[in-house]
Amino acid sequence: MPSYVLTMQCADGPGIVKATATGIADVEGNILENDQFSDPVTGQFCMRTRFESPIADISNVRQAIDAQTAGFAPTLGIRHEEVQRRAVVMVSSFDHCLADLLYRRAHGDIPIEICAVISNHEHCRSLCEQYGVPYHYVPVTKETKSVAEEKVLEIVKELDIDLVILARYMQILSDDVCQQLSGKIINIHHSFLPGFKGARPYHRAYERGVKLIGATAHFVTRDLDEGPIIEQDVVRVSHARQVQDLVAIGRDIERTVLSRAVRLVAEDRVALVGNRTVIFSQ
Amino acid sequence: MPSYVLTMQCADGPGIVKATATGIADVEGNILENDQFSDPVTGQFCMRTRFESPIADISNVRQAIDAQTAGFAPTLGIRHEEVQRRAVVMVSSFDHCLADLLYRRAHGDIPIEICAVISNHEHCRSLCEQYGVPYHYVPVTKETKSVAEEKVLEIVKELDIDLVILARYMQILSDDVCQQLSGKIINIHHSFLPGFKGARPYHRAYERGVKLIGATAHFVTRDLDEGPIIEQDVVRVSHARQVQDLVAIGRDIERTVLSRAVRLVAEDRVALVGNRTVIFSQ
Amino acid sequence: MPSYVLTMQCADGPGIVKATATGIADVEGNILENDQFSDPVTGQFCMRTRFESPIADISNVRQAIDAQTAGFAPTLGIRHEEVQRRAVVMVSSFDHCLADLLYRRAHGDIPIEICAVISNHEHCRSLCEQYGVPYHYVPVTKETKSVAEEKVLEIVKELDIDLVILARYMQILSDDVCQQLSGKIINIHHSFLPGFKGARPYHRAYERGVKLIGATAHFVTRDLDEGPIIEQDVVRVSHARQVQDLVAIGRDIERTVLSRAVRLVAEDRVALVGNRTVIFSQ
Amino acid sequence: MPSYVLTMQCADGPGIVKATATGIADVEGNILENDQFSDPVTGQFCMRTRFESPIADISNVRQAIDAQTAGFAPTLGIRHEEVQRRAVVMVSSFDHCLADLLYRRAHGDIPIEICAVISNHEHCRSLCEQYGVPYHYVPVTKETKSVAEEKVLEIVKELDIDLVILARYMQILSDDVCQQLSGKIINIHHSFLPGFKGARPYHRAYERGVKLIGATAHFVTRDLDEGPIIEQDVVRVSHARQVQDLVAIGRDIERTVLSRAVRLVAEDRVALVGNRTVIFSQ
Repeated sequence: MPSYVLTMQCADGPGIVKATATGIADVEGNILENDQFSDPVTGQFCMRTRFESPIADISNVRQAIDAQTAGFAPTLGIRHEEVQRRAVVMVSSFDHCLADLLYRRAHGDIPIEICAVISNHEHCRSLCEQYGVPYHYVPVTKETKSVAEEKVLEIVKELDIDLVILARYMQILSDDVCQQLSGKIINIHHSFLPGFKGARPYHRAYERGVKLIGATAHFVTRDLDEGPIIEQDVVRVSHARQVQDLVAIGRDIERTVLSRAVRLVAEDRVALVGNRTVIFSQ
Repeated sequence: MPSYVLTMQCADGPGIVKATATGIADVEGNILENDQFSDPVTGQFCMRTRFESPIADISNVRQAIDAQTAGFAPTLGIRHEEVQRRAVVMVSSFDHCLADLLYRRAHGDIPIEICAVISNHEHCRSLCEQYGVPYHYVPVTKETKSVAEEKVLEIVKELDIDLVILARYMQILSDDVCQQLSGKIINIHHSFLPGFKGARPYHRAYERGVKLIGATAHFVTRDLDEGPIIEQDVVRVSHARQVQDLVAIGRDIERTVLSRAVRLVAEDRVALVGNRTVIFSQ
Repeated sequence: MPSYVLTMQCADGPGIVKATATGIADVEGNILENDQFSDPVTGQFCMRTRFESPIADISNVRQAIDAQTAGFAPTLGIRHEEVQRRAVVMVSSFDHCLADLLYRRAHGDIPIEICAVISNHEHCRSLCEQYGVPYHYVPVTKETKSVAEEKVLEIVKELDIDLVILARYMQILSDDVCQQLSGKIINIHHSFLPGFKGARPYHRAYERGVKLIGATAHFVTRDLDEGPIIEQDVVRVSHARQVQDLVAIGRDIERTVLSRAVRLVAEDRVALVGNRTVIFSQ
Repeated sequence: MPSYVLTMQCADGPGIVKATATGIADVEGNILENDQFSDPVTGQFCMRTRFESPIADISNVRQAIDAQTAGFAPTLGIRHEEVQRRAVVMVSSFDHCLADLLYRRAHGDIPIEICAVISNHEHCRSLCEQYGVPYHYVPVTKETKSVAEEKVLEIVKELDIDLVILARYMQILSDDVCQQLSGKIINIHHSFLPGFKGARPYHRAYERGVKLIGATAHFVTRDLDEGPIIEQDVVRVSHARQVQDLVAIGRDIERTVLSRAVRLVAEDRVALVGNRTVIFSQ
């Protein structure tokens, strides 16, 4: 029986769950998983529901749910669960996050299709070839930056990409690109934000003498390292660790945090309420 | 407006959420929080819903929900959110778990009423007096064990207790008492179960040379330390820590784990499916 | 046999360990614990050694070690292990950190003597009385701030205090007081520094949507929340947690982090190299 | 200047540090790192010291230290720091631990030489070829088990292997092999020992309803899953996770724990005192 993932967001009020559940019942659906959150500050309601239905035509299913919930004017998303997000990964010369995503993807841990890798270096080409993923070398200099960004947007468009993953891509994207990819581009920052925004976070973490270092996966917005946070984690480090040790230790936490964030996004477990994310974790 | 906490458990099937949401809508209810789980192994469905309704009479609210959900023959619980569970804490001579529960209770962190403390020692009396909690000294010897247990059951009955908390109570309860209090008695065990069941877990953890020690809060059943697990946690310890250090370090993890478990139970966030718990955490 | 705790700091170079171990051997000492660190950046060497010696007169022991190590011109500290640091705790109206310190002190977990509590509120008086600790109510207004600070310094001097612990003391101390107490005053800040320095960190953590909140124990310097970090930790929080929840959850992490830091300082396990701490943990 | 790693173990007593430091000073050595532990239960003393010396001939260095420490009759090990342990990895069909070791080795995170991989399956051959590591396919059936083990011992001997790493090798080694490789063979077990010893730990963890799952790296002895523990860690899992989820989540914790353990052993940071390990971590 086909299964569906439904996401919904609207102003909170009585009757939304009843309406949605009725819509699902109208297509003989059985709810497998259901998460919801009513934000007391903004009055926003978010929901994620996974259900089975004998109806295989997604437009019929959507119609049934639309019919019941229209009064709430929700932002509504629905997809066949087996249809995976189409992703492109952007990377510079550090390959640990990319390697982790490719490995997990190959083992079925992250339900995305990695359609291409874009890099401003040639460094990760052979890794991608091992996994059969097309590799686009798009070099960036001060002069060619806008051309390079055009090329990126072109690839995103041509491949019908849903999700752009900056996996330690060391170029700052222009406001225009951030805008165009808004809501579907995520980044891994190598610090526990809001600490150590910007460049060389491990150097500054060392200098400040913090006892834990971390990483943060977030949506990319025009404000550098200020986008909504999807996932964070930290690891303990001792005074004996030098900057290069922090960099090495950080690799683990970066790849773990980014992979978790990608999985959450890929499974529609992330909703946005203002600048905060709602995470429907398992 | 009064708010309610509803818990429900039944065989899984299509239409349960619709029925429940309809029942809630019938009393003009607005859902504030909703968690559910369909267990693929047993086919059991569990739900916890917190909602507001202008109807103040709980029997009317229950009736409306019963009417809609009766077809699923659920086990259904409903209470006014502000009505707190009535608890008794049992303790021997270590006071750290008891002190933590009393402190958190006083600061509004755990929504229970601590109606009494029962102990086989006099050690914790002054602590209880500071918080104005009645203290029952019920000594236990091999000869008086059954008399002592009778006394405990009597207090539980007289005070109309919903929840018995063994907060490092060092006597093993008889099968009969476990049976009579089944489902409403929880214990903190000072190891990460199933490791180090039974006596002197810190000594055995030291001897085995484990790198983390832990604690486990669980429902009490007749099989010692085998009841459904509610919460667990661990803390790292080095080789330099001796048994008495593990005991001291363990105090922190014991009190934290027990307090979390009590809060989960007090807020109806724990459902039982076979010997496993479903935890509707925030 | 008396045991000693020796701390040493000097420029790194060959022969320091030999010299120190020879000094200890000269008083028939047996090393029980020994930790050291050579900082590659500053070239500083730090050491902490715990040893037993049949010589009970500390000045003789010190002389022997001085004699062997003088060539390295170290900053050297030595004390009988059983002689505890004399501490004063400063607190405002939140009592969780103070309560934790008093509880742990009473259970022998933290080897300090709590000689007095100073507060700008009356709130914690009865708590202190339960533990038999003198309570000094020193109110602070804009007008009386310097008088109040004089009073604090007077108490510190009169009681011969080694360690001032700001356990959620909500007044900012003047540069002059920070200066006078330099190296012997520590604070708990209710965020994971350097994130959310300054006021209302939980409110800002909520607004930023971080997935972990934390606490930081640090030495107090004139630069607010910029002093050397002694200990930090974090705890995961979900989107469902409101500001008041973060405050409640934060209590646990604040008291844990502060107590760990106080213990580390009390046991001479903290050395300072520039603005970074070296922690000789067990 | 060459640097050395010295390990030492003997009965505790006054003067050991002085003697060792004197030996190091005799070869104009400068101590870079020094860790030691006196076990109060067994009276054993262990030390690990890293130092630089202008003397490049290791036998001269050893002689100097022997001369000073001979009175303590220590078990003493010394090596040039840049001389890496020679390791063989044994694996069945799960490749996550092997992939992690190869990746970290290639990035310089783990100072070992991976001389060969031995497997009873062909599954991991191409992975090894990507890293240029020789792959030995040694199939095992009930009938060929002793022949296969002979082959393994032969490879270990021929390649002059210091360390055998069972990276999810799913065959139980005979007592004889365990004996012959004693002290230089480590295993990753996919549970938090002593919980869930033996087969199918994730299935049993699911059935028991534990709230955290873990992994344990340990030395292999004849008693299955009873050898000295080197490293352990855990990760939180919810009730919603099915057995296959635990297996997937467990991959992360297994590879992390094994890699940490291998690094500790490779850097001589692990000493054995009875059935417990002393870990000189950074």
